[in-house]
Order: sequence, then C-alpha cells, then structure tokens
Amino acid sequence: MKIVLDAMGGDHAPGVVIDGAVMAAREFPGIEIILVGREEVIKRELARYDTAGLLLSITHASEIVEMEEHTDAVKIKRDSSMRVGMRLVKDGQADAFVSAGNSGGVMAAALFELGRIRGIKRPALATVYPAAPIPVLLLDMGANTDPKPEYLVQFALMGTVYVERMWGLSNPRVGIVSNGEEADKGNILVRDTYPLLQASGLNFIGNVEGKDVTKGLADVVVTDGFTGNVMVKLSEGLVSFLVKYLKAELTAGPLNKVGLLLMVPGALAMLPGLLLLTPTVRRITKRMDYAEYGGAPLLGVDGVVIIGHGRSNARAIKNAVRVAKEAVETGMVSAIKDGLQQWSANEEKGETDV
Amino acid sequence: MKIVLDAMGGDHAPGVVIDGAVMAAREFPGIEIILVGREEVIKRELARYDTAGLLLSITHASEIVEMEEHTDAVKIKRDSSMRVGMRLVKDGQADAFVSAGNSGGVMAAALFELGRIRGIKRPALATVYPAAPIPVLLLDMGANTDPKPEYLVQFALMGTVYVERMWGLSNPRVGIVSNGEEADKGNILVRDTYPLLQASGLNFIGNVEGKDVTKGLADVVVTDGFTGNVMVKLSEGLVSFLVKYLKAELTAGPLNKVGLLLMVPGALAMLPGLLLLTPTVRRITKRMDYAEYGGAPLLGVDGVVIIGHGRSNARAIKNAVRVAKEAVETGMVSAIKDGLQQWSANEEKGETDV
Repeated sequence: MKIVLDAMGGDHAPGVVIDGAVMAAREFPGIEIILVGREEVIKRELARYDTAGLLLSITHASEIVEMEEHTDAVKIKRDSSMRVGMRLVKDGQADAFVSAGNSGGVMAAALFELGRIRGIKRPALATVYPAAPIPVLLLDMGANTDPKPEYLVQFALMGTVYVERMWGLSNPRVGIVSNGEEADKGNILVRDTYPLLQASGLNFIGNVEGKDVTKGLADVVVTDGFTGNVMVKLSEGLVSFLVKYLKAELTAGPLNKVGLLLMVPGALAMLPGLLLLTPTVRRITKRMDYAEYGGAPLLGVDGVVIIGHGRSNARAIKNAVRVAKEAVETGMVSAIKDGLQQWSANEEKGETDV
Repeated sequence: MKIVLDAMGGDHAPGVVIDGAVMAAREFPGIEIILVGREEVIKRELARYDTAGLLLSITHASEIVEMEEHTDAVKIKRDSSMRVGMRLVKDGQADAFVSAGNSGGVMAAALFELGRIRGIKRPALATVYPAAPIPVLLLDMGANTDPKPEYLVQFALMGTVYVERMWGLSNPRVGIVSNGEEADKGNILVRDTYPLLQASGLNFIGNVEGKDVTKGLADVVVTDGFTGNVMVKLSEGLVSFLVKYLKAELTAGPLNKVGLLLMVPGALAMLPGLLLLTPTVRRITKRMDYAEYGGAPLLGVDGVVIIGHGRSNARAIKNAVRVAKEAVETGMVSAIKDGLQQWSANEEKGETDV
C-alpha cells in the first residue's frame, strides 16, 4: 500500500509532517509513504532522521497552497503538492492522500483531481466528536455550507458505511442535529430532510439536540457544513477557554501563588495514589486528544482522502496515515459505492431498505 | 416596580420558583413580585416561608403551558400563567415578566399579548456566553430558526442597545457567527447579512468563528436561532459530558479506588493552601454558573421579558428577577425603540450611523 502525504500542508509544515511521516513509516512497515512537495525542502528535513530501511519516497511538486489561501488558488496551482498528490491516487500510483493543509484547498483539489463518486451529489467532511460510551461521527463539518436535503441523506448513508467499516458497528444509528427533539423542530433544511431520512432505510433515530450529541444517542450525526463547522470549532474554543481561564485565575495574585506553593507538599503526597490512576489518566488523555483521531475523512470523493487538523503534531500526522491505511484496508470507498448502488436500486424499486 | 413571575414555569415549578420569589423579595425590598399561576398551589408553597413584610402578591391563572407542550397550546390557553402574566405587563399593572417555563411558549405568549416593538420584524432570544475577559451576548438562540438578513441586523442593533444599557459598554463590537474569518466565508444567510451589518453603522467587526466566540473578539455575537440554539446546548452538553466522563473514568475499578483513597492524606494536606485560593474558586464558580446570569432577555417584544433556564434553581430565579429589574431600571425597551427610530431615520436619510 502507498499513502501520499502532503509535505507542505499544516501550520507546522514541513517539519512536523516529515517527523510524522518517519513515525508512520516506522510503525507501519508495509506501507510506503510518498512525501509530495518541494523536493529540496523535504530532503533537507528528512536528513535529520535515520531513514535507513524505511519505505519513504519523494515526489516533487513546485507549488504550495498556503493555509489561509482562497480555494481558488487550487485551480491555478496545478503543480501544488495537493494536486500532484491527488493525481498519484487518481492514476493508481498511490492508495490514499493525507494532508493537514488548508481543508478547503484539499477539498477543492480532491474534486478537481479525483472527482465525486458516481451518484454522490456533494462530498462531506466527517469528524470524530467526543461522546459516551464511544465517539460519534459528525458530518458535514464544512464542505457544504448550504446543502440540500438529499445531500444530507447521502451524508447519512456515507457516515453509516464509514462507521460500519471503520469502527465495526452494525446498523449504526443516524441522527440529525436540530434545535429540539420533536419531529417538527428544526430549520427548514432539517424539517425537509427529516422525512427523507425516515424513508431512507437507514437506522434513523430522529433529531439530536446540541446537548445530546455527547450522549451518543446516535452513532452518525448529520448536519449542514455551516452548523457542523461552528459546532466543532466552538467546542475546541470552549475547552481551550476553560483550561486557560482556570489557569489564569488560579495563578493570578500573590495570595493564590502562596496558596499554590502551600499545596505542593500535599500534591507530592498524592503522587503514589496518582500512580495507580496512571492507566486511566493515560486512557482519558488519549481519548480527549485530537491527535489520536488523526484526521477527518472527506467522504464522497473517488479516493481515500484524510484531512488532518492544521495544528497537527507529528503524532496526529502519523495517526492520519493510520486512518488512511484503515480506510484503504476496509475498502471504504468501494463500500460507499456499493451502499449507494444498493440504495439507488431500492429507491427505484420503491423499497427503502439499504 | 412590579415584576411578574410565572409560578408554573420551569422543570422544578412551582417549588423552586416560589423559593426564588421569596429570595428575590428579600434581596430587592422595593420590588413587588406578582406570582401568577394556580392560587391554591402558590398559597400552599408560600405557606412554607416566613413572608411577613415581603412584597409578594398572587394573581390567579387556571391554566399551565407544560414544559414540553407545543407552542400552539399558548394560543388556546388564554388563562395560562404565561398569558395572564403578560397581560399584567401589557395593561401597565406590572413592569416585567419572568418565566423559567417552555421558552417557545413564553415567546408565543409575548407575541400574543405584548406584540413586537413597532418596526422590529422578529424578536430574538439573547444569552450570555462565557468569554474572556467578559462574557459575550449571543443572539438569537432559538426564536427564529430561518431568519432573513434584515432580522439579523435588527438583532445586532438590539444586542448593542442591551449591552450598552445593561453592561455599560459603549459602542460594543458586533460580530456574526461564521465558518471562517474572511468576509466571503459563511452560508448564504451570513454572506447576505455581512454587507448589511457593514452598512448598519453598528461597530461591526466581521465574522467570528466558533473557536473565537470565547475569545471575546466581539461583545455582541449574532446568529440564526437554529445555530444559536445548537451552540448553547452543545456547550452545555460538552461541559457536562467532560465532567461526568472524568468522574466515571477516575472512579472505575478497584485499582482507581485504592489510588483515590491513597490520595486522601495528600489532598487533606493541600487544604490550607486551597483555603487561600477560596476567593478565586468562588469567583470562578460564580462566573461559570448559569444561575448567576439568571435569564435570557427576549429582545424586540414590547415589554421586558426574561426567560430563565428550564432547570433553574431558586438562585437562578432570583437572578432572573434581578435581570428583569435592571432591564426596567435602565429603560431597556425604550432604548431599543429609540435606537431603532434613530437608525430608521438615518436609513431614510441615506446615512448609516446609529
């Protein structure tokens, strides 16, 4: 298997991308990582690692789609790492594409080079959102700001196939984000989509309110890309706000500083007990760390495309490669094609079961 | 000043509402609290308190709009506590209305009885969202799921007047929730609203991404009622999920229990230091506690209407009364009327400054 990694994509590219590539090459020895980008830059970065025996190769691409650049740039930059990398997948020279770059840019490049799966109206960007007992797949988180109801139904179908294949859930529950549980709640889009989801043959459980997303009532939660984007980014912002706010408040002023100092011996005395909690703390950290999830799959394009967080560190890059590897292994794209075909066939026959 | 309190509204009504009413009557001695609802029930609850000398009165209303009831019920239930209470405000027998009941119901009752301020197309429900260094006013959080661009501009105007009057901010910054900072980001509604806000004469600072709401880039943040509702409820759900999840994980299994037990002496040793941090901890708790904010103002109806959280405890009820009191004292409704008039006048003259 060969996985393309966009060496120029991400806030900390190319440094952390190369670091992540080396990490991935070590952890997944059977996988060839094709680094796409400016050859001399990649070579210089790679020289810092011992890459003997690792399956790492370089494909040169002269242009870069910058993080804040308008997606229009992708159209012009035919020799950007994104488009060159996507073409490797298109031409069968690689099996998947991974980038932590400008997500709008990656989506545009995927549409230019790979195109949509036949029958899919719009691709959707899916993300893993924390919930109990297991996370939920939330989509779309930004590919379509004003989707039509039928797009949302396709998102639900693609999300269903994804969690079936990738997470091994059978007949996953599908919900739609709304401002109330009742069937008549929602904006026009949600109210129009509701009956279509009911008739889709998917395991549709109805509306999911904002407060219930984390409750895991549904495994696949669909929404328009505007709301999805706001949800994911608001959550990030809120958690980072709470952490920063608590830290700032607790360390402000001489009284607090003395208080914290006085607490040090007690904190030290807690260490042996804390040691016993280490496995749990580690599990929590892992569960809460975006870097563990690696990347968000762009569903509906004709190839495996995984988009990592712009802030990705090396571990996040490595895990994005892992997600891409699993998507290839489980035949995610052909499973979506099959699901769509079966569904369309049933639709034509007037049946609704997938 | 007389403030109507819907004795039958809220998940824990009438118990906590009466409790909160007594608390408010004690804390704000000049204010008469008019409890509206089933007289015998209110009397029975009141009998549990020493109300001697407190300005508390009862106005009977035979019907109740239930928490989960469809807003259509408000149309029929002309003798509900919500509609009877609103009529007291309408008729000048009271200055403000407070309810922790079905928020859709309160909005419907307000529209039936008080109506909109002349010139206001739609009312908006505003909420106080945590941000640093001070919270932001987020609106709409559910009154309008599919607003038009001009409604959002009016929300921005009303929000501006509200934070000017109630929080004493001058020329507050206005932002609109979007999926990107750039002016061309957003769904159709946001992109259509953007130029109107730019031309509004309000202190419009542009798009605010989900991750930046807590950063306090804007004091007033407008969005459609669908997105606003999802934002507020998702935040609630996420915080409660994190707390529950951490607790469940850390206390699961015998090893963790032993670990926690071993930490007790250390934790006790930390107490003296923690004591010095008490004022800070108290401030944090207060800041993070929804009960402190009391309630969300329904802006744009012709009267002061404050909607408390359904889960309101007595302190939240008391604080909702305080918010109502301040809105009356600062002349919030007439300030919105003035602001609107000035703005319309400028619009007609082709000027845009408020």
